[in-house]
Amino acid sequence: LLAISSPGNPLVKTLSKLQQARHRREQGLFLVEGSRAIGAFLAAGWRPAHLLVRSDEPVPADWPEAQRVSAAVIERISAAVTPPGYVAAFPIPTPPALEPARGGLALAEVMDPGNAGTLLRTAAALGVQQVALIGGVDPYAPKVVQASAGALALLRVHELPASDGLTPFADAPLCALVARGGEPPDHFRRGARWLVVGGEAHGIRDEWLARCAERLTLPMPGGTESLNAAVAGAIALYLLAMTEAP
Amino acid sequence: LLAISSPGNPLVKTLSKLQQARHRREQGLFLVEGSRAIGAFLAAGWRPAHLLVRSDEPVPADWPEAQRVSAAVIERISAAVTPPGYVAAFPIPTPPALEPARGGLALAEVMDPGNAGTLLRTAAALGVQQVALIGGVDPYAPKVVQASAGALALLRVHELPASDGLTPFADAPLCALVARGGEPPDHFRRGARWLVVGGEAHGIRDEWLARCAERLTLPMPGGTESLNAAVAGAIALYLLAMTEAP
Repeated sequence: LLAISSPGNPLVKTLSKLQQARHRREQGLFLVEGSRAIGAFLAAGWRPAHLLVRSDEPVPADWPEAQRVSAAVIERISAAVTPPGYVAAFPIPTPPALEPARGGLALAEVMDPGNAGTLLRTAAALGVQQVALIGGVDPYAPKVVQASAGALALLRVHELPASDGLTPFADAPLCALVARGGEPPDHFRRGARWLVVGGEAHGIRDEWLARCAERLTLPMPGGTESLNAAVAGAIALYLLAMTEAP
Repeated sequence: LLAISSPGNPLVKTLSKLQQARHRREQGLFLVEGSRAIGAFLAAGWRPAHLLVRSDEPVPADWPEAQRVSAAVIERISAAVTPPGYVAAFPIPTPPALEPARGGLALAEVMDPGNAGTLLRTAAALGVQQVALIGGVDPYAPKVVQASAGALALLRVHELPASDGLTPFADAPLCALVARGGEPPDHFRRGARWLVVGGEAHGIRDEWLARCAERLTLPMPGGTESLNAAVAGAIALYLLAMTEAP
C-alpha cells in the first residue's frame, strides 16, 4: 500500500522545490538521497522531517517509519539521472557559535559542488569537525550533499557571507593553501588552525590572503600547473591534521 | 573566413563519433577540449591530427595552424553542456613497453570517469610517469580526458585487460590501497612500487589483492566509512611518493 503515489501530491511538490536554494531557506529543509547517505544522518542521531522509500526497496530495520511512495514520486523530487529509491528531507541545522581557535576547514568561494562536497567528506573522514563556507556553494544543495556522502551529518557547518571575508575568524591561525609561493608541508607543525582553500578559478582573494599568517604549497614535481582543488585540499588537510604525532 | 561552417561536414561527423570508444579505436584518435588542456598536449610535443578553433576565439601564437569553425561545428563534436571554443583530435599513442620494476599508479577497475581523470591528473602533478588501467574506464573517453586536465600528455598510459589481472606486473612491488586492514602510511619507505587503487563499488578483487605484498590503509579518525576513491588514491600517491627524502 502506497502512502503517496501521485507526483502531483502537495508534499511531493513541496519537497521537489528543495532543489532550489530559496525554497530550502524558506522551508528550512534539505534533501538527502540514497540509503547509505540517509543512514549516515540517522546513525548520527538526525531525525528526518520526511522519509520516503520507493515501494520496491526494503526499509532498513533500524530506520524510523518511512512513507512508501511510487517511482514517479521519487523521480519528481530527485534531480538525479538515476534516482535512488530513498529520499529524505532533514532540517537545516543552526550550528553552535563558530569557535575560531579550534580550527577547521574554510572553503573560500569554492564554486564547484563536487569539489565542495568531496572536501566536506574528507574533513569528516579526517575528524575535522568545523567547516566554514565563505561565499561559494550552498552546502545544502543536492549536488554538494551527494558528493559529501553523508558527511554533513558529522560536521558543524558555518555559512559566512563573502562580504564578511575572514573577519569572523578574528586572530585564529589561518593557513592558506596556495598553488605557488607557500611553504612545503614539512614546514608546518601539527596544531589547531584553519586550512583555507580558495575557489577553482581565482584562488583566495588577495585581501583574505593577507590575513593568513601561514601559506602552504604542495610540491608538484611533475611540472604540471595544478592539482584538482578537492585533491589539493584533501592532501593538505591530511598533512596538516595527521602527519605528526599529537 | 571559416574553414568549416556546417555541422554536416564529413570531418565534423567523423570527429563527433570520437565520443564513442569503438570509433576512437577505429580512427586511433581521441578528443581534447579547451585551450588549456590542448595547450598542455602541444607544450609536451604532441601534434594534433585536427585542431579546430571557434571563430570568436583567438588562436594562441605558439599553436600550429588551426581550422576556423562555427559554433555549430563545435557543438556537434563536443559532449560538453557548454562547449569550449577549442577542440583537438590527437592520435592515441602506443606506450613503450610496461616497466614493472619502475612502479607507478595502477587503476584496477576504476569505473568513474571523474575519479580516473582526477587520479591521472594527480599522478602527473606528482611526477608519476607510468599509469596502468586494468579494466575499468577508457582513459581516452572525453570525461576522463576532461578531468585529467591535460595530464595524459605527460603519462605513459597502459591499458590492460581485466582478464590479465596483475600478471603483467610480474614480481614488481605492488601496494594495494584498502579501506581497512592495511598498514598506516608511516609504515612504508619511499621506493619504486605500484600503488593499486580499486574500483569505487567493490575495491580490489581478492585474487588481485593476493598478489599485493603491501597493503596501505589511510587512517580515518573521523569515523566515517570511506574517502572518495580519487581523494584516497591521491593522498596515498602523495604519501608514498613524497613523504620521505629520496
